[in-house]
Amino acid sequence: MELTTIIGLVSAFFFMYYGAGDVRLFLDFPSFVVTVGGTVATIFIRYPFNMIANLFPVYKKAFVTKLDSTDDMIKKIISLSVEAKKNGILGLEKVKIENPFLKKGVQLAIDGVEPELIEAVLNIDIASTAKRHETCMGMLLTAGDAAPAFGMIGTLLGLISMLANMDDPKGLGPAMALALITTLYGSLMANILFVPMADKLKYFHEQEMQLRSLIVNGILSIANGDHPAVVQEKLSSFLKPDARKILDATLKTRGG
Amino acid sequence: MELTTIIGLVSAFFFMYYGAGDVRLFLDFPSFVVTVGGTVATIFIRYPFNMIANLFPVYKKAFVTKLDSTDDMIKKIISLSVEAKKNGILGLEKVKIENPFLKKGVQLAIDGVEPELIEAVLNIDIASTAKRHETCMGMLLTAGDAAPAFGMIGTLLGLISMLANMDDPKGLGPAMALALITTLYGSLMANILFVPMADKLKYFHEQEMQLRSLIVNGILSIANGDHPAVVQEKLSSFLKPDARKILDATLKTRGG
Amino acid sequence: MELTTIIGLVSAFFFMYYGAGDVRLFLDFPSFVVTVGGTVATIFIRYPFNMIANLFPVYKKAFVTKLDSTDDMIKKIISLSVEAKKNGILGLEKVKIENPFLKKGVQLAIDGVEPELIEAVLNIDIASTAKRHETCMGMLLTAGDAAPAFGMIGTLLGLISMLANMDDPKGLGPAMALALITTLYGSLMANILFVPMADKLKYFHEQEMQLRSLIVNGILSIANGDHPAVVQEKLSSFLKPDARKILDATLKTRGG
Amino acid sequence: MELTTIIGLVSAFFFMYYGAGDVRLFLDFPSFVVTVGGTVATIFIRYPFNMIANLFPVYKKAFVTKLDSTDDMIKKIISLSVEAKKNGILGLEKVKIENPFLKKGVQLAIDGVEPELIEAVLNIDIASTAKRHETCMGMLLTAGDAAPAFGMIGTLLGLISMLANMDDPKGLGPAMALALITTLYGSLMANILFVPMADKLKYFHEQEMQLRSLIVNGILSIANGDHPAVVQEKLSSFLKPDARKILDATLKTRGG
Amino acid sequence: MELTTIIGLVSAFFFMYYGAGDVRLFLDFPSFVVTVGGTVATIFIRYPFNMIANLFPVYKKAFVTKLDSTDDMIKKIISLSVEAKKNGILGLEKVKIENPFLKKGVQLAIDGVEPELIEAVLNIDIASTAKRHETCMGMLLTAGDAAPAFGMIGTLLGLISMLANMDDPKGLGPAMALALITTLYGSLMANILFVPMADKLKYFHEQEMQLRSLIVNGILSIANGDHPAVVQEKLSSFLKPDARKILDATLKTRGG
Repeated sequence: MELTTIIGLVSAFFFMYYGAGDVRLFLDFPSFVVTVGGTVATIFIRYPFNMIANLFPVYKKAFVTKLDSTDDMIKKIISLSVEAKKNGILGLEKVKIENPFLKKGVQLAIDGVEPELIEAVLNIDIASTAKRHETCMGMLLTAGDAAPAFGMIGTLLGLISMLANMDDPKGLGPAMALALITTLYGSLMANILFVPMADKLKYFHEQEMQLRSLIVNGILSIANGDHPAVVQEKLSSFLKPDARKILDATLKTRGG
Repeated sequence: MELTTIIGLVSAFFFMYYGAGDVRLFLDFPSFVVTVGGTVATIFIRYPFNMIANLFPVYKKAFVTKLDSTDDMIKKIISLSVEAKKNGILGLEKVKIENPFLKKGVQLAIDGVEPELIEAVLNIDIASTAKRHETCMGMLLTAGDAAPAFGMIGTLLGLISMLANMDDPKGLGPAMALALITTLYGSLMANILFVPMADKLKYFHEQEMQLRSLIVNGILSIANGDHPAVVQEKLSSFLKPDARKILDATLKTRGG
Repeated sequence: MELTTIIGLVSAFFFMYYGAGDVRLFLDFPSFVVTVGGTVATIFIRYPFNMIANLFPVYKKAFVTKLDSTDDMIKKIISLSVEAKKNGILGLEKVKIENPFLKKGVQLAIDGVEPELIEAVLNIDIASTAKRHETCMGMLLTAGDAAPAFGMIGTLLGLISMLANMDDPKGLGPAMALALITTLYGSLMANILFVPMADKLKYFHEQEMQLRSLIVNGILSIANGDHPAVVQEKLSSFLKPDARKILDATLKTRGG
Repeated sequence: MELTTIIGLVSAFFFMYYGAGDVRLFLDFPSFVVTVGGTVATIFIRYPFNMIANLFPVYKKAFVTKLDSTDDMIKKIISLSVEAKKNGILGLEKVKIENPFLKKGVQLAIDGVEPELIEAVLNIDIASTAKRHETCMGMLLTAGDAAPAFGMIGTLLGLISMLANMDDPKGLGPAMALALITTLYGSLMANILFVPMADKLKYFHEQEMQLRSLIVNGILSIANGDHPAVVQEKLSSFLKPDARKILDATLKTRGG
Repeated sequence: MELTTIIGLVSAFFFMYYGAGDVRLFLDFPSFVVTVGGTVATIFIRYPFNMIANLFPVYKKAFVTKLDSTDDMIKKIISLSVEAKKNGILGLEKVKIENPFLKKGVQLAIDGVEPELIEAVLNIDIASTAKRHETCMGMLLTAGDAAPAFGMIGTLLGLISMLANMDDPKGLGPAMALALITTLYGSLMANILFVPMADKLKYFHEQEMQLRSLIVNGILSIANGDHPAVVQEKLSSFLKPDARKILDATLKTRGG
């Protein structure tokens, strides 16, 4: 799992623990069922099944699978272009490629599909991935709205039960404590899990979209039979400003 | 009724029941009248009668009637085009068509109405359906705002009654429990019924609009006397990317 | 007054009454003064006098005066065009016209003002009416924000008084009940009166703007000396899709 | 000070007084310091000094200085153009002009500055005035957000103090009353002072911007040596629709 | 540190102190850990590490480093252009330049890099600085949302603990006081630190962007070998309207 997310989650729960003391006071299974269950149920009422089914794969890919760095991907694509220059485009068949999107694009190039069609097929793939990501971000934000609402509903359920049965004044305090636990769960779920993770997912989404855009450019350049130096120059605009600036200056000075 | 909506609604109430225990504590008819009645009344003050009258038919159509799948509709339209090729456009008169929008369009084609006029008539129908759907979504969201407000108004009514008559301290708890029930009802209505169903309705709306757009394209193609293969190609862009991609690749390879 | 608004208002108060029981508990004149007075005062601080002066006439026109239906207005304008064809434009002087906007436009036509100037004068009238309506909608929404705020201010005033004078513990309950009444008033005013009526006013506004646009088209057509059939055709686009579609189909079939 | 603002402020406080009874209960200097002080302090943290320094002059100008009416200004400018036609542009040196913006523009015309430069200089002045007004409206709205927040902070300070020292149960009520006073102050400041005055300032801003635009047009017309009748016609578009319509009709009839 | 920010922060805390009395009541380390820790943790879950790493340098630069005034910068650039006119562009090598952005640009000019490349390199630098600033403003606003949420979570933790252990009724008050301290911390952090500082940072950001834009214009003018008077004229548009107006008038009068 991605490091800052882990640091954030672990430290958030550690700080809560430090402030709260006895953790057992805050564990209550029915409260968990009301808050989590209500939030999940509302997702089912709001979204059709085929959208919900995408949630876990996207989540897993975003937080578990490591994205290739831009640098590594540029180097990989340049090595592919060198190989294609040496042994022809069919020579790429023997190269091992891990990134599935790159692999798919290279396979299309090996199969001799025309560049325009390669671009169209890969862009359709990018668009449907982007749509999946956006639906998942929307679901996380929806869950971030629903969790506190079901937390409050759980507290209302608890308060009404408690007030209707006030025979034992001694039990009032613990009963009310219990009633408040759903509000706590709803607030924690929204503020630690759902809303922040939607933000982080957005960041991964932007990174992956940029990486895929880089891959499409690289594959098209290889399919066009460009010289490895040209491939490098075309891909350099995907580097961060600092790195690109140096490259640009070098190229221009040489050119001038 | 549509499956995920049912799963969501049933599980939401099951989770509430699991957390709440004795259900009878949460049933109170006057509280129901205040919250539901106030929400309905506010809809009457906000909207004119002819808009309100659309609410139930739209609701029924969205959640009860099953939409044809894109695949089935494409197959149906292609079978119609095959029939029209074989026996002429008048041969369609004998074909049984269940989808009322498709039926209406085919009837116009049989009647020999010019394609431009068919397109205009069907698009006016689509626009007025879209407007009806949007008004209904707006009403659901309005109800989702009004329900918690009338829940709070009901709680205020209950609290004021209770505080003005504090002769029996023993009755305080149950009276306050009763007062809180309207807040619970308002919150449940907004978070389980109105707002999530507005979201699901939006999804059905988008699906139906896409299906109708597909039907308009199909009928125009048939009315133009296109060959069934051309009809298929024209309609393929309405398929999901995965399905379309394969189709595209196949067609291109053949064409190339 | 317009029917659905009356149904909504009466039923809202009936449902509240059903839930509340003894109405006398909820009537308190000073609470009324604080909530209503504060809301009105804030309107005076926010808006200049000439805008506030428009509020009641607009309200009266929207909720009391009945708008002519599109059908009736089209029939009326066609009858005017028939009269103008028979006896010349001066023959319109004897026709009784109830709608003041139509009357004004016809008078300009009778006076021989050029069509472009008639259009300009009527459009200036429409623009200033629209501006008046929009300001009134804005005021209602502002009042819908202010009423709950002054309800809460009233409750704070009541709570502070009560807490500062806690000599008689028996009086605590009724005093707090009284304090909550302003919150109830503010909430009822916002949720039953101001915000819903702003919505309904918006609907009347849209209807009146469309009717006036129809009238401008009709008067210009008469002033241009168009044949009554042409006037009818020009005005038919203001009918609802269903009605228009039939008309369109009829006209096209004849034309074809 | 402007009349409706005074009426609104006085009546708002009168209605509060009527509902509240004993005013002394609601006066507490430390509560005032926390709420007002916190709101002012937050303005200093948010804005740089040169923006804050503009607040009082703008406020004074908007609520104390009376704006010239459009009619009076048009008459004044026409009288200037008559004077300029009679005695040449230098003859304006002897005319007494009260409006500083008009005075500045006329002085530029007397100095023989070219019309384009006069327009540029006056528009720069208008833009910087508009920017000053907008910053002030933004500060009022910011204060309208901050005041209730510091009211709540004050109440938290009071509640924490009170709860930590619960030796004297008799003092609980008055202590809590005191704690609530900051919430009352914050709410009154936001709902009576800051937010409504931002609205009224916006109205004055729009009026002054229109008046200045009128003045620029008038001065340019005079500097161009236009005939007073032409000056009048050019300025008539700044009149309200009703007045303009009559004028337009008159001019057109004459022209026709 | 920048003066109005210090005045605002010091006075805000002074006013709180004046209203609160005994400060020791409001100091509680675990409450501090829950609120601040939770807010920081949520930043780690929301943002990737390389964005978080920028927060402190940007903050330091904005609130500690003093920005050069526009006037001083114009004078400095003109003195550089005078030097370049006298001793050639290489003569700038001996001039001491403190502003790092100006220094970098001048160095590029000395190195004989072409003006278009200088502009491109400096604009890339500006864009990446702007992106860093905007991310930091976004983090401050995020923290301003998270702090009150974790304040409320801390209060829930405290209340639940307290209610579950109600053996000692005497301890109830202080325990609840303690529970409220996190809400106080969250509210203070949001309303005094995070949200206002995001506003001030925005102001510094706008100032620095304008200053850098001025520097780019100046360096390009020098690199083009413009006469110092031309450099001055080009840079005058960055002065405030008042100052520019005088300059414009002077230049035009001379020109005329």
